[in-house]
Amino acid sequence: MRKIAVIDDFMTPAHHLKIDDIARKTGFDVSYFSNEDALRGHETEFEILYGHCAPDILKASRNLKWFCCSYAGVDPYQKEEVFPSPETLLTNSSGAYGITIAEHILMVTLMLLRRMPEFQSIVAQHRWQQTLPMRSICGSTITVLGTGDIGTNFARRARAMGAKAIWGVRRSKKAADPAFDEIYAHDEIDTLLPQTDILVLALPSTPDTRGILSKERIALLPPHAYVVNVGRGSAIDQEALMEALNAERLAGAALDVMVPEPLPADHPLWNTKNLILTPHCSGNMSLGITCDLDVDMFCEDLQNYAAGRSLAHLVNRKLGY
Amino acid sequence: MRKIAVIDDFMTPAHHLKIDDIARKTGFDVSYFSNEDALRGHETEFEILYGHCAPDILKASRNLKWFCCSYAGVDPYQKEEVFPSPETLLTNSSGAYGITIAEHILMVTLMLLRRMPEFQSIVAQHRWQQTLPMRSICGSTITVLGTGDIGTNFARRARAMGAKAIWGVRRSKKAADPAFDEIYAHDEIDTLLPQTDILVLALPSTPDTRGILSKERIALLPPHAYVVNVGRGSAIDQEALMEALNAERLAGAALDVMVPEPLPADHPLWNTKNLILTPHCSGNMSLGITCDLDVDMFCEDLQNYAAGRSLAHLVNRKLGY
Repeated sequence: MRKIAVIDDFMTPAHHLKIDDIARKTGFDVSYFSNEDALRGHETEFEILYGHCAPDILKASRNLKWFCCSYAGVDPYQKEEVFPSPETLLTNSSGAYGITIAEHILMVTLMLLRRMPEFQSIVAQHRWQQTLPMRSICGSTITVLGTGDIGTNFARRARAMGAKAIWGVRRSKKAADPAFDEIYAHDEIDTLLPQTDILVLALPSTPDTRGILSKERIALLPPHAYVVNVGRGSAIDQEALMEALNAERLAGAALDVMVPEPLPADHPLWNTKNLILTPHCSGNMSLGITCDLDVDMFCEDLQNYAAGRSLAHLVNRKLGY
Repeated sequence: MRKIAVIDDFMTPAHHLKIDDIARKTGFDVSYFSNEDALRGHETEFEILYGHCAPDILKASRNLKWFCCSYAGVDPYQKEEVFPSPETLLTNSSGAYGITIAEHILMVTLMLLRRMPEFQSIVAQHRWQQTLPMRSICGSTITVLGTGDIGTNFARRARAMGAKAIWGVRRSKKAADPAFDEIYAHDEIDTLLPQTDILVLALPSTPDTRGILSKERIALLPPHAYVVNVGRGSAIDQEALMEALNAERLAGAALDVMVPEPLPADHPLWNTKNLILTPHCSGNMSLGITCDLDVDMFCEDLQNYAAGRSLAHLVNRKLGY
C-alpha cells in the first residue's frame, strides 16, 4: 500500500480522523510520528511526508514523491541537493499563518504606537503616569513588504482600523488583494519609504528579499517610523537597524525574526533601544485555527495528488516560495 | 462681551485658531488658561467653560451657563450641588475617545490572547521559547458592556478581525451600531456570561453600572475568559476579580481603570496574577485625533449654543451620561 508519514506534533485527534478519512478514500496508509527523530530509520518507506523536519530526513527519504511542509517558510529546503530527486514535489502551508501573524503584527504595532513598553515599565515600578504622546493606526501610512497571506491579512485589519494608506510591495507589480490601496514592485521601495509611518516586512527568504531593508533604505525612513518584521531576519541589515534605533533615528521596531535564531544570550539585539523582541512566536502552531487550516490544506492537496491534479500549494523551488 | 474660558492643556495652535474663528463669528471672546489653577480667581467672568477642571471651579463660576467637559466621563460632576445653578448646561466629549480606547482594548486583548506578558518575561531573561498555546479574536465570542462610542469602535474592529459573535449590552434594548450581532439589556447579562470568551467593559459610572460585574457574575464567566475594563473601575467588584485571577478561575484581565486612582504603591492589584494593568492611559489626550475631535465637538456645540439650538453632546444629568 502507498504510504504517508505524518509528523503530528501539533495535531489533535480530530486532525488524525480527518487525515485518516481522506487517506482511506484515496488509497493511502498513514503512519504518525511524534517528531522527526521517531521517523529516522523509516524514511524509505514513504511516498509522501507531511510535517516539518530537518533537511537530512528528506534526503534519506529515497522513495519520496511529495513533501508537504507544515510551515509557510521553506528556506531550509532551498538547495536542490536536500531532495532525494529533482522530481520531488514541495508544497508549503502558506495560508495557515495569516490570521495568527496578522494579529501579532497588529499587537506589536499598537504597542509601539501606544508606548506600551514604557507604560509597562512605569507599572512595574508601581508608579502612576497617565500621559505619553501616542499615535494611531488611524491616519497612518503603512507600507507592507510582501503581499501574500500574512501581508494581506494584516492589510485587511489595518484598513478596518482606519489606516490612511496601505501600500503593498511585491516582486512583480501584479494585482493583489483590494485591502491594499496600491501595489508597487521591489524597485519602487525607495520612493515609498520617506512617506511611510509603519513599515511591515512579511517576506519569505529568497535571493530577492535578503537584505532588502538595507542601511541606505533604513536611512530613507522618517525618524517617527516604526519597523515590524515577521518574515525572515535576513531581510534586514540588522546592524544598521540596531544603530538607527540606538541613535533614535527611528521611533522603534518589533522583530519576531532575527539573525541568528535562537538569539545568543549576549547578543546586542536584546538591549537595543525602543525594540520589542519576540522569540519567533508570531506563527508556529500556537493557534488552533492555524493547525486546522494546515491540516485542511494538506488534505486538499492529498486529494489533488491522488487524482493526478496539480497541487494547490506547490512551491516554485527556483523562486523559493 | 460674552466670554468663554478654555483650559487648553491639550491644544495646538491650530486648535486655538479654530476656536477663535468660531467664537468671533458667534460673538464671544475667548480666554485661554494653561490649567485649572490659572483660572482660579477669574471664574465669575465666564458664561462658558471648556476643559476639564475640579468641581469647586464649577461651583465658583457663578455666571456659568454651559460647561463643556473635554472628557467623556463626567462622574466628578454628578452631584447637583457642584453646579452654580440647576440650569447650567453640561456637555461631555463622548465621541472623541472611541478610536484611541478601541485601539487600547484591541492591544491588551491581543496581549492576553497571545500570552505577551509571558513572552516579554522570557525575552527579559534573554531566553528563547517559541511556543505557548494562544487564542485569537478570530472565532471568539465577545460581550461588550456599553455600546457607546468606545464599545462601538471596538466592536467594528473586532468584527473585521473575525470575531464569531459580538454581543452589546446596554441599559435599554434599543438598536445600536450594526457592528454588534445582538443587543441585550442589563438584566440579560447573566445568560451571556457563561458563553463569553472576552468580556469588555466600556461603561460610564452611573448608579446602574456601579458593581455591574459582581462577584456572582464573575463566577458565571468560563475559566478561559478574559476581562478588559476601560470604563470606570467602580463597574467591577475588584476584590472578587483579584481573587478569581489569583485562583486562576479566569484566564486573565486588563484593567486601565480601577479603584482607587491613582493606585497606591502597596495595593494588591499591582501583583495580581495574569493581569495587565495600565495607569488610566487608554483615553486622555495622548492622541492627536482625540484632541482634534474634542475641539471639533466643542465648536459644533458653540455654534448650536449661540444659535439657541439644543446642544448635540448634552449630558442627561439624571442618567449621568
